[in-house]
Amino acid sequence: MRPQILVTNDDGITAGGIRALIEVAATFGDVTVIAPDSPQSGQGHAITLESPLRLHPSRIFEGLAVRAFECSGTPVDCVKLAKSVIARDRKFDLCLSGINHGSNASVNILYSGTMSAAMEAALEGINAIGFSLCNFSHEADFEAAKVVATRVIGEVLAKGLTGTQLLNVNIPNLPISEIKGIRLSRQAKGHWAEDFVEGKDPSGRPYYWLAGKFNCHEDSDETDIWALNNGYVSIVPAMYDLTAHTALTPLRQLLNLNL
Amino acid sequence: MRPQILVTNDDGITAGGIRALIEVAATFGDVTVIAPDSPQSGQGHAITLESPLRLHPSRIFEGLAVRAFECSGTPVDCVKLAKSVIARDRKFDLCLSGINHGSNASVNILYSGTMSAAMEAALEGINAIGFSLCNFSHEADFEAAKVVATRVIGEVLAKGLTGTQLLNVNIPNLPISEIKGIRLSRQAKGHWAEDFVEGKDPSGRPYYWLAGKFNCHEDSDETDIWALNNGYVSIVPAMYDLTAHTALTPLRQLLNLNL
Repeated sequence: MRPQILVTNDDGITAGGIRALIEVAATFGDVTVIAPDSPQSGQGHAITLESPLRLHPSRIFEGLAVRAFECSGTPVDCVKLAKSVIARDRKFDLCLSGINHGSNASVNILYSGTMSAAMEAALEGINAIGFSLCNFSHEADFEAAKVVATRVIGEVLAKGLTGTQLLNVNIPNLPISEIKGIRLSRQAKGHWAEDFVEGKDPSGRPYYWLAGKFNCHEDSDETDIWALNNGYVSIVPAMYDLTAHTALTPLRQLLNLNL
Repeated sequence: MRPQILVTNDDGITAGGIRALIEVAATFGDVTVIAPDSPQSGQGHAITLESPLRLHPSRIFEGLAVRAFECSGTPVDCVKLAKSVIARDRKFDLCLSGINHGSNASVNILYSGTMSAAMEAALEGINAIGFSLCNFSHEADFEAAKVVATRVIGEVLAKGLTGTQLLNVNIPNLPISEIKGIRLSRQAKGHWAEDFVEGKDPSGRPYYWLAGKFNCHEDSDETDIWALNNGYVSIVPAMYDLTAHTALTPLRQLLNLNL
């Protein structure tokens, strides 16, 4: 039986990146697409609690022989609806998210709807891979990314995963001939230095528009940022246990927590 | 000099929980409040990229001698604005988020705007504590939670933190006399089993409204869920490195990643 593959993203169902990913996914299995009906970049692990969600069949992938739906919610909402409403009767073998227009390396994984959708699938026990291309443009060229995705998806479908159910794959913005290889990496330490653009709206009222610059705090060749900066695809095995396990014992010694 | 304390939340600036936290914080330092102008539960680490943000001084805490602002964005947006717009000239010594109306134990940390705001502060190098009371009600009684918060904040201001800059504090919904103590815990394994409420809107079109039930997958007394179920406050030291470090070597052996 062909694998059942769920595809979603955070750039919205009309983005070029999800079409590229669907084209690759359809060579491996039966594809169900549930993607946001509008851009959801930066939505992280947001879910929609205060309002109902809409879900409509979409015909924009006609010719690709996939089932497709657009959803009014976030990427994580899409995965929840996929599991609980669209495919109640069966289980997905793999969830693919992306291909994101822009990097999700380092701490970008926290803000990324693409990666949160994949993480939500992993939480449900489904192997999940998020793909991101280091090119923010709407017109990004996904040809090299498709070659990388084909390789990674093929390996994961053939061999499964071990030690994690979630991969964060970031692809440098290079032609395939210039990509040096694929490196298993760890999340680089870094943060965004904000620089809000301040202005006045047409009514003269002030606004603040988020902008900023990513700062990497380390240059170890073990990190995703190093891999990307040096022409490699980075794969970070990821997880969702946010416990700082090594802090438990020192904190027990440091703090007096008697009430 | 009195500590500079930033307070935010995800239930919105009018929630009872943030007022309770501000009352506690003001006994320790100079308090700046920047909180969402509407409920932002379940917003996770979402940031606002597609539209500008609004920021207005608020007078709802008059009498508490704090500076307060309401913001049109998410909890993480609030922390970014606090650092980059409101307090460019100085650094906060501590960020407090909450007190959330409802538990943020186990995987709820992923969906929680309360915890993501605290995590964003930790990313910026600021010690941060998220507080949550296991009571979803708007009319929740925060008296016991205030006693707990006073104890935890006092210890962290006096001694700092070690091994992490982020604590996830969850408080059982009990009077203080029935709380057995405070336990340093790890995040319990669990997930939400969704059960979307399906209906028709007034125009007859279908909608799906997210609901569900939390399932804990383990009963170890090391976990936050165990602590809460047994009458203890849980403190999970948390972090934002999502790398599954122990998966790196086995995945290198399992997968052939030659391009």
